[in-house]
Amino acid sequence: MAIRELRAATLNSRQFIKDQVKEIAETVGDGLAVTALSGGVDSSVVTMLGHRALGEKLKAYFIDNGLMRQDEPRMVAELFARFGVPVEIVPAQKEFFRALKGLVDPEQKREAITQTFYAKVFRRLLRKSRARFLLQGTILTDVEETVAGIKRQHNVLEQLGIDPKKAFGYAVIEPLLPLRKDGVRKVAKALGLPKSVYARMPFPGPALAARVVGEVTPERIDLVRKATAIVESELKAARAFQCMAILHEDRFAGMRDGKRDFGMQIEVRCWESVDARTARPVWLPARVHERLAARITTEVPGVVSVTYNIASKPPSTMEAV
Amino acid sequence: MAIRELRAATLNSRQFIKDQVKEIAETVGDGLAVTALSGGVDSSVVTMLGHRALGEKLKAYFIDNGLMRQDEPRMVAELFARFGVPVEIVPAQKEFFRALKGLVDPEQKREAITQTFYAKVFRRLLRKSRARFLLQGTILTDVEETVAGIKRQHNVLEQLGIDPKKAFGYAVIEPLLPLRKDGVRKVAKALGLPKSVYARMPFPGPALAARVVGEVTPERIDLVRKATAIVESELKAARAFQCMAILHEDRFAGMRDGKRDFGMQIEVRCWESVDARTARPVWLPARVHERLAARITTEVPGVVSVTYNIASKPPSTMEAV
Repeated sequence: MAIRELRAATLNSRQFIKDQVKEIAETVGDGLAVTALSGGVDSSVVTMLGHRALGEKLKAYFIDNGLMRQDEPRMVAELFARFGVPVEIVPAQKEFFRALKGLVDPEQKREAITQTFYAKVFRRLLRKSRARFLLQGTILTDVEETVAGIKRQHNVLEQLGIDPKKAFGYAVIEPLLPLRKDGVRKVAKALGLPKSVYARMPFPGPALAARVVGEVTPERIDLVRKATAIVESELKAARAFQCMAILHEDRFAGMRDGKRDFGMQIEVRCWESVDARTARPVWLPARVHERLAARITTEVPGVVSVTYNIASKPPSTMEAV
Repeated sequence: MAIRELRAATLNSRQFIKDQVKEIAETVGDGLAVTALSGGVDSSVVTMLGHRALGEKLKAYFIDNGLMRQDEPRMVAELFARFGVPVEIVPAQKEFFRALKGLVDPEQKREAITQTFYAKVFRRLLRKSRARFLLQGTILTDVEETVAGIKRQHNVLEQLGIDPKKAFGYAVIEPLLPLRKDGVRKVAKALGLPKSVYARMPFPGPALAARVVGEVTPERIDLVRKATAIVESELKAARAFQCMAILHEDRFAGMRDGKRDFGMQIEVRCWESVDARTARPVWLPARVHERLAARITTEVPGVVSVTYNIASKPPSTMEAV
């Protein structure tokens, strides 16, 4: 299926919303649909569109996969409660960590998260809720990068020739397919979502698992979660397209209290970009680098080394794995 | 043995040279001594002191361990020829790479280099030359860091309780033990060595092997050698205490020609320091970072990601492993 791109610059948000609400309502009919909120702008917009189209026939879940940032589940639920959309937080940490155990290959890690998400947790929720439709925030860049073989996005199924109806027992509705990130932000604003949502940094489907090189364990996620909180708070003023902390698997010589400490490294990336297709590092003042390094080596246990990404996309990608 | 430190600020270089030349001459007596030049300021100063003390009774070698930088063996030999000191280049690449094969632990890698250097290549040279003394450029910081257990310097033996006479069959003379790097530079200048030597950046004993995380192979040394040449040429103007390229073992998502390319990462470090005991990153202009990243991802095959170190020493160390 060829997708006709709708460019942000010429996008009529109100018309787009009206069209999509109508189409969702028609597709779902008398049935029920579910949506998985992650707090990101894509899934937030899809949830609002679904809510407008279906009202109580839409059930919104937040799957707590154990890979989210500090306080994320609670904050997302609170935000949508204000819009009259009840969000059920589904605890699934153990299932995800069990699926990720021992995996070091990035594609295998993404696949484990995809399978746990769609085939296990979501299938269970759909059965329980008797829904036949899954509303999902896939955007054009996700599809392109997956088809090109650059990166497997966790939410791209049909484009890979996977029929979710056959594979998982439900149909997927993807209203944001013609848009890129900048278009989604415009629609989010038109839907009345707050700036914390429409201007929010992209955050990957596999969440913090995409920012751990090597095996994803609860302990390693906890380290990168701490580093992420520091990076996001220190770089707020940089108004970057995206910033992140990445925990490396390599170990580096370090010293603490005059003794050798063979420790870990955190890489910080802070991107300037319009549509995520290309990106450049943001050049930060020296004092920001100094503060980042000082806080991360002090507050994240076992970290002796901190680096800052200086390569562009391409040949880099925005996320690490 | 307690070492009495001679501080650079109050060091009388001429007196120091006179004293050391006398002591070396007395210690070696009628015998022969050898020195292993690496091109660094420490081994260059020791070679000049030995040359003044012993003349033709000193035999200077450059061990080509396969881990040196671009053109280093040839350039060092040419420089000392100008001072009337003949340098014999000893090809030993195969022995070092054989000893390093399969090793990933930094201490094991250092140990393999130490053993190959002292117990194999050097012992052979000493037998051939019938020398009983090895002149060596160990400085105070090497000893302190080894004793503290921060990092095993390849040239510290007695301080670790190893008797080189018993272990390897020769005695080690270390005239620079009371000095730190700044003191050695002062002596180098007083000896008439050119600025390219006395102002030269420190380079580690294990050479480029200290800048490869994981296994050291000829192929991986070749990659870090290419990156090192780029970093040293692009950062010449920064007048840093030390700058380096480090090849990581971790792999990162990247893209080339629109296709996924799971590639390598090079970390650049550029240090501001007086005596190597503490150090801070040099804050470079954005265009320097851009050029470094562009050249490294273009000229070093398989590299998709480039980072810049932003942590200080401590808790980092200057070299990576």
